[in-house]
Amino acid sequence: MKRYEALAADVEESIRTGVLRPGDRLASVRHTSTSRGVSASTVFQAYYLLEARGLIRARERSGYYVAGDIRKVPPEPDLTSQPKDESIALDVSERVFEILESSMTRDVVPFGSAFPSPLLFPLARLGQAMAASAQSLDPWSTVDDLTPGNAALRRQIALRYLADGMHVHTDEIVITNGALEALTLCLAAVARPGDSVVVESPTFYASLQALERIGVQAIEVPTHPREGIDLTALEHAIARHKPKACWLMTTFQNPLGGLMPEPKKKALVELLALHQIPLIEDDVYAELYFGDKRPAPAKAFDTQGLVLHCSSFSKCLAPGYRIGWAAPGRFTRAVARQKLTTTLSASAPAQLALATYLERGGFDKHLRKLRRTLAEQQATFAQAVGHYFPAGTRATRPAGGYFLWVELPEGTDALAIHRQALALGISVAPGPIFSATRAFTNCLRLNYGHAWDARAEQAIATLGRLAQAHGPSHADVSL
Amino acid sequence: MKRYEALAADVEESIRTGVLRPGDRLASVRHTSTSRGVSASTVFQAYYLLEARGLIRARERSGYYVAGDIRKVPPEPDLTSQPKDESIALDVSERVFEILESSMTRDVVPFGSAFPSPLLFPLARLGQAMAASAQSLDPWSTVDDLTPGNAALRRQIALRYLADGMHVHTDEIVITNGALEALTLCLAAVARPGDSVVVESPTFYASLQALERIGVQAIEVPTHPREGIDLTALEHAIARHKPKACWLMTTFQNPLGGLMPEPKKKALVELLALHQIPLIEDDVYAELYFGDKRPAPAKAFDTQGLVLHCSSFSKCLAPGYRIGWAAPGRFTRAVARQKLTTTLSASAPAQLALATYLERGGFDKHLRKLRRTLAEQQATFAQAVGHYFPAGTRATRPAGGYFLWVELPEGTDALAIHRQALALGISVAPGPIFSATRAFTNCLRLNYGHAWDARAEQAIATLGRLAQAHGPSHADVSL
Repeated sequence: MKRYEALAADVEESIRTGVLRPGDRLASVRHTSTSRGVSASTVFQAYYLLEARGLIRARERSGYYVAGDIRKVPPEPDLTSQPKDESIALDVSERVFEILESSMTRDVVPFGSAFPSPLLFPLARLGQAMAASAQSLDPWSTVDDLTPGNAALRRQIALRYLADGMHVHTDEIVITNGALEALTLCLAAVARPGDSVVVESPTFYASLQALERIGVQAIEVPTHPREGIDLTALEHAIARHKPKACWLMTTFQNPLGGLMPEPKKKALVELLALHQIPLIEDDVYAELYFGDKRPAPAKAFDTQGLVLHCSSFSKCLAPGYRIGWAAPGRFTRAVARQKLTTTLSASAPAQLALATYLERGGFDKHLRKLRRTLAEQQATFAQAVGHYFPAGTRATRPAGGYFLWVELPEGTDALAIHRQALALGISVAPGPIFSATRAFTNCLRLNYGHAWDARAEQAIATLGRLAQAHGPSHADVSL
Repeated sequence: MKRYEALAADVEESIRTGVLRPGDRLASVRHTSTSRGVSASTVFQAYYLLEARGLIRARERSGYYVAGDIRKVPPEPDLTSQPKDESIALDVSERVFEILESSMTRDVVPFGSAFPSPLLFPLARLGQAMAASAQSLDPWSTVDDLTPGNAALRRQIALRYLADGMHVHTDEIVITNGALEALTLCLAAVARPGDSVVVESPTFYASLQALERIGVQAIEVPTHPREGIDLTALEHAIARHKPKACWLMTTFQNPLGGLMPEPKKKALVELLALHQIPLIEDDVYAELYFGDKRPAPAKAFDTQGLVLHCSSFSKCLAPGYRIGWAAPGRFTRAVARQKLTTTLSASAPAQLALATYLERGGFDKHLRKLRRTLAEQQATFAQAVGHYFPAGTRATRPAGGYFLWVELPEGTDALAIHRQALALGISVAPGPIFSATRAFTNCLRLNYGHAWDARAEQAIATLGRLAQAHGPSHADVSL
């Protein structure tokens, strides 16, 4: 834990235990800096984090105050998951498709959606970049921009790695149709039918679907909601099941939101290197951090080319453009060939438009605004969950991304909530779709990446009533 | 054979046998119309076809004349292929990737390329459509245009089916990242690891790669260079191997260029319906016909939803945009779900740009010009092959598309030609990459979709010398 995180945790503890109460003024930055023996910048970072979490509020020229409704925020879940120690042949349920399809219409409240609001993105500026680049398109770009992809765009991506302290060569970058394709191509490059692959528990349903499609079994490994996959359990799973690869999200994991600490990421990479097991790292949420800098991915600690790093612009800049990439280390050539034989290439004008946008600048400014918005929406959302959901509900407070993982009281039927909510025009992502064994029956993943408004609040209130209705007693209630 | 085709065949016969000689004037349209008892329009169509094939030339206000260098055009191959009657586990060679990768640089003469020249396409007008649509992009289109795809574009595609006399509902159309993805999604929807699938012999190498990737075996069925797969042999293969699907190109087959006659397409569909075997129909070249109308696909004769029709705009309008589609009949939902779990969706701005372009009109005008250009380039190319290649060479004369299939004298080593040509800056597609057993060792597929110029002629001359050098005697020659 870093200094500012430790300071924030202390202040949060004081708020939760009632030492500090709603409306109380926090000690000034100068005072805290002196009393704790840390820099003013550390105090600012801590206060900024607390503000992002909705625990404190700044008043201009007056300092920071404890937020009014702080006691409504539910506590975070803290137990590591306990999946069965098995290699599981997959059978993706209809339900995943129901969820996907239900969140694809505008008129449903999109708490079950995998996407943040499209209104959060600089679509007008992207459109200008697209217009400028489309009208000056070199005809031969249709040949030149074939896999591995447009050179200018790959250079821009390499520059971003560099800005984050990572040396990823332009030649290692393969442009794909979004991160989902990058992940499936990486999987096909390292695993064959009959192999098994380690995933987190719970895990993103699309990884289960991808494994199923090529006949690969899943090994679900215990995972902590904040700190990620359990390394001891992973070591055990490696010894027992001899997996061909791991497929993990180490930063703002979907659905939990967990952020694996950097020393743990390093230990993960070292463990896998020892066994020469490739790590497919899904890192699509990393740019959506609420802290002071982009969390380093496991890729940053890779010295052997064993980490296949996958990301995209879909969550942070250009949804719908379907431009992602893989930086697959020693598997780069294999991944490029998988791409050539499946979809050949990403869309040339979309690649060029993003390259143009990135060259013109403004991406970082957009990201700062986007992060602030998401952090604020998380705070509001978490407070609403605390207000409307049954006692005993827990919810993660990720330090980035746009998902809350909500654990309802043991015995609550999340699938029943999903069905009834959908009938009422509200989508949620019920826990069982994030597991090969359909565990997490009392959990929901909620998307806070859409603007908070009266309709959203009403929908959360409805979900709260449904959670009560489908709770441990399963009593029917009229809505 | 239609009337105009029969008339054209008669005239061609007269030319080949020397009854009509270079420079001779053909009978006038009116005269021929009377003497043959056909309409003037039929005679025009026949003469137009002969002109497209480079056999005759029009002189303004003077009529049609036999072209000067007609005897140089090589005869067409006429024997049905004879692959082994086996179901073959695939092992795609490095060579396919070598070819693909070698044709992806501008400085190589692209006879081995799978793409026509990008200069043939209305990229400026597409860019205008892209600019207009990108700047008025509705943010929610990033949600609305997810699979199955942009509604306006799907409607435009349905309208084109309708114009060709086919009723394909908008809801049956799934937009994909090019036809290659459409084909692989259709394959995944109907076949599983361990199954076997019928392909033509020779067949497009990408289909072999796709089968290999998901562990499906290939059954290569005898195929005639002009008339397509042999139905008797297909029936035999069905009885013996119980294939889960057929994957065929019935129109301008790659690499042969064959066009299955419509009654045969109908018989094919009926045969497969009898056995309830789905047909994955790759129809990407259909718009590039040189005759009077778009050849009907097998899909046109399907009454049971068993034909999964795949096409794209990559070959006829917008290379590099990577927009294709499937119309998968009863498998539509399965294909859409495959798409959702692999690449999620095609690029929204690229979809919208094509919809805008198609709505604005001008596609048909562009196509007419494109067809004329390709027909002329085929004639020039075929004559150059006749002039420079060894005696005994045969070459197909497809009625559309941009590939010639060249059969060199038995014993010629096409792979050696490929290797040596590449070292000299010329790419070709050698026969063995079109077969699971690496047959067709004396064949080349040549792309005539690029402008004919001095460099191209010199390259054909070089290939002719290489063909001589690696011919049956395998004598070394200095180049």
